[in-house]
Amino acid sequence: MEFKISRESIQQFEDLIAEKNEKELLEILKDIHFADIAEIMNELSEEGAIYIFNILDSEVTAEILLELDENVRENILKNLSSKEIAEELDELNTDDAVDIISELPQERKGEVISELEDLEHAKDIVDLMRYNENTAGGLMGTELVSVNENWTVLTCVKEMRKQAEHVSRVHSIYVVDDNQRLKGRLSLKDLLTTSTTTHISDVYIRNVDYVRVDTKDVEVARIMQKYDLEAIPVVDEMGRLLGRITIDDIVDVIKDEADKDYQLAAGISQDVEANDSILTLTRARIPWLILAMIGGFVAVNVTRSFEGAMEKFRILFFFTPLIAAMAGNVGVQSSAIIVQGLANNTISGSIWKRLLKEVTLSLFNGFILSIILLLGSHFLLQVDYMIGITVAIALVSVIVIASLIGTFIPIFLNKYGIDPALATGPFITTSNDIFGILIYFSIAKIILGF
Amino acid sequence: MEFKISRESIQQFEDLIAEKNEKELLEILKDIHFADIAEIMNELSEEGAIYIFNILDSEVTAEILLELDENVRENILKNLSSKEIAEELDELNTDDAVDIISELPQERKGEVISELEDLEHAKDIVDLMRYNENTAGGLMGTELVSVNENWTVLTCVKEMRKQAEHVSRVHSIYVVDDNQRLKGRLSLKDLLTTSTTTHISDVYIRNVDYVRVDTKDVEVARIMQKYDLEAIPVVDEMGRLLGRITIDDIVDVIKDEADKDYQLAAGISQDVEANDSILTLTRARIPWLILAMIGGFVAVNVTRSFEGAMEKFRILFFFTPLIAAMAGNVGVQSSAIIVQGLANNTISGSIWKRLLKEVTLSLFNGFILSIILLLGSHFLLQVDYMIGITVAIALVSVIVIASLIGTFIPIFLNKYGIDPALATGPFITTSNDIFGILIYFSIAKIILGF
Repeated sequence: MEFKISRESIQQFEDLIAEKNEKELLEILKDIHFADIAEIMNELSEEGAIYIFNILDSEVTAEILLELDENVRENILKNLSSKEIAEELDELNTDDAVDIISELPQERKGEVISELEDLEHAKDIVDLMRYNENTAGGLMGTELVSVNENWTVLTCVKEMRKQAEHVSRVHSIYVVDDNQRLKGRLSLKDLLTTSTTTHISDVYIRNVDYVRVDTKDVEVARIMQKYDLEAIPVVDEMGRLLGRITIDDIVDVIKDEADKDYQLAAGISQDVEANDSILTLTRARIPWLILAMIGGFVAVNVTRSFEGAMEKFRILFFFTPLIAAMAGNVGVQSSAIIVQGLANNTISGSIWKRLLKEVTLSLFNGFILSIILLLGSHFLLQVDYMIGITVAIALVSVIVIASLIGTFIPIFLNKYGIDPALATGPFITTSNDIFGILIYFSIAKIILGF
Repeated sequence: MEFKISRESIQQFEDLIAEKNEKELLEILKDIHFADIAEIMNELSEEGAIYIFNILDSEVTAEILLELDENVRENILKNLSSKEIAEELDELNTDDAVDIISELPQERKGEVISELEDLEHAKDIVDLMRYNENTAGGLMGTELVSVNENWTVLTCVKEMRKQAEHVSRVHSIYVVDDNQRLKGRLSLKDLLTTSTTTHISDVYIRNVDYVRVDTKDVEVARIMQKYDLEAIPVVDEMGRLLGRITIDDIVDVIKDEADKDYQLAAGISQDVEANDSILTLTRARIPWLILAMIGGFVAVNVTRSFEGAMEKFRILFFFTPLIAAMAGNVGVQSSAIIVQGLANNTISGSIWKRLLKEVTLSLFNGFILSIILLLGSHFLLQVDYMIGITVAIALVSVIVIASLIGTFIPIFLNKYGIDPALATGPFITTSNDIFGILIYFSIAKIILGF
């Protein structure tokens, strides 16, 4: 089962590596899953990781390569000759091999490919490298079991035994015609329970889900989730079977997409990790902070334009952070619900019904919050009751406007093909800060007259 | 392939339903996937959805039930007798059947179970209902193929043909001993390529991943992702094989977990959708808004305590929304990176190293932003240069403190077993608003002396 990494276990590995105690290391590592070995290598020193990599079998190291952190993998690959890398790739499925090759420097790619032993494998890899990595073509592998519709079950089983040698996991058996066009699929269960003389054309399932090679990865993920598929065949424009995508790659797509939305909501504009360099982290974070800063300049000027109220109603200025915070929070809540609804395809009904609902919801929430504000400003802050009422009325208006902005900006962006998640986080909080403060002082001006 | 829902297609269905044109409806529906039929039913009127449900075969309706929106499913189930519901459940896998039963009102649960035809199935369902839905037990189904280690491949194939009748997808063949204890697994590939007289004990893979029945669902998801598994067996305290969890259920767990983190970052405290009722949406949103309001009260009082500066440096008060916004944004960015790192297990190294990195990063970002602030306040806002320098110095300090709070609160919560995602969003923005304003005015007071 799972190996638990601790500071002690890492130290033990470092010690054994320092002693170059290959025998003991191999003895320990043989019972550890390659995904765990990769995690251990991520924690070791650069030399330690390379030492471990070199003493292990290429069958294991190929799988380890896939699981390593990107920077550790880069280090390891730098220390390998093109021939050695090719040996690793020969052990991998085509889709995984392509992922590794695409990380290599341009000039090494060709060298590595020319060193691949299995020419069929090399051909598939070169073909796959042509597809955009965010499409079905970029996700698919060519390892699959396919049978001709004109075969019998017996021929089929014999052929499958041959094909299965190259395929680590058999998901479905795809049925094709003489032109390699996808006709349907055969379940392993059917194969187990059908007599061997039956013709494939009599038993296969004609209704098969598939995607075109240019389908976007998130669309493939949506389809596989919707129909609960563990693998889906990929066809070209003529309907010819090119490969298959398995659910483990789709899990990564789903996870990446969710991470991206989460990061956008938090104001981080590219995929970063806590362990990335300060420069990478700054590049991902500072654009949003500059946006917020520019919004802040506008807010300064909006506030300053109501300077006239400062003599008689200076308390109003103490409330600006509260108003801005409420506007920002309400806006983010509204936009987050819409962004998730758009992502999960659960936004239905007309735009007018949504408008009515959002106004009702925000009036209701605004009403509750303005009661709390009235009580708080009277008992906690001991503010003049006229000021309290003014702030409370302004708060309701700010909340309604903020929730409308939060709701409609993502819908609008989505309509024009822009990722609606861009609208959450700093974008909404900044624009809502400005509108909130403007509405707040305008209403105060009308009520209090300054 | 996928059926595209449009306003027209829904209208067409409604018209055919109004005419009670069963023949035409069945003709159209027979080529549509059950997941698509469920989506159509979600859009139809209540009576329309019930009509469609009633004309379809129970083999299809059982699968449709699983895919329907919760409120539509509730309506359909209300219109079915306990015997009819039991017929639907007899078509489903045990884990799915349990999901449906758990949504029924308490008094109907027993009635439905007593109407189940297949007693073995009923027994499994009752057993599964005992497990907490957020554990491996709550996710697993009992449909699996298991063989005894003492059998030959031939006996095994015969037995499997029998067992496979009840199992819609064969993932792995689990090998058990005479006491039903999990010993290993057999791949379908091995079975296809091994002679029939071989003993199972000679070919099975002894190293099998499994989870205990009380393992948390997110932990199961982590393990299945890490080891790229499509199914994992579940064992009890004695190691006896109880069931299996498939990747499609884990995809839902991963998606729900990511959605939950995203919603928490946006200040939404339970799983809600845009189409939920106003009361449900309010319940999910208002606690965070009240928190922000209370924070706002504190911010009002903090600002007021620097009222003395209002005579000479009233411009300082116009900058409070900018300072609060920067503090909030920086805090959310820092905490989001840590929360994701904790979720993905990529936070490593000592706390002091992280402290040093965060301070360096925020000093660097703060420096860039204070230059922009200096330029902006001079050229855009025409503010006195002493005020500009004061605000810039305060901004750097606010950014450093905000990023430290954003980094360490999630780490702290995680250490004490609290979901660190709770710390993102309104919690961080509110506390950073307060600290930000306090630090800002304190520094201004030191520099400008009021």
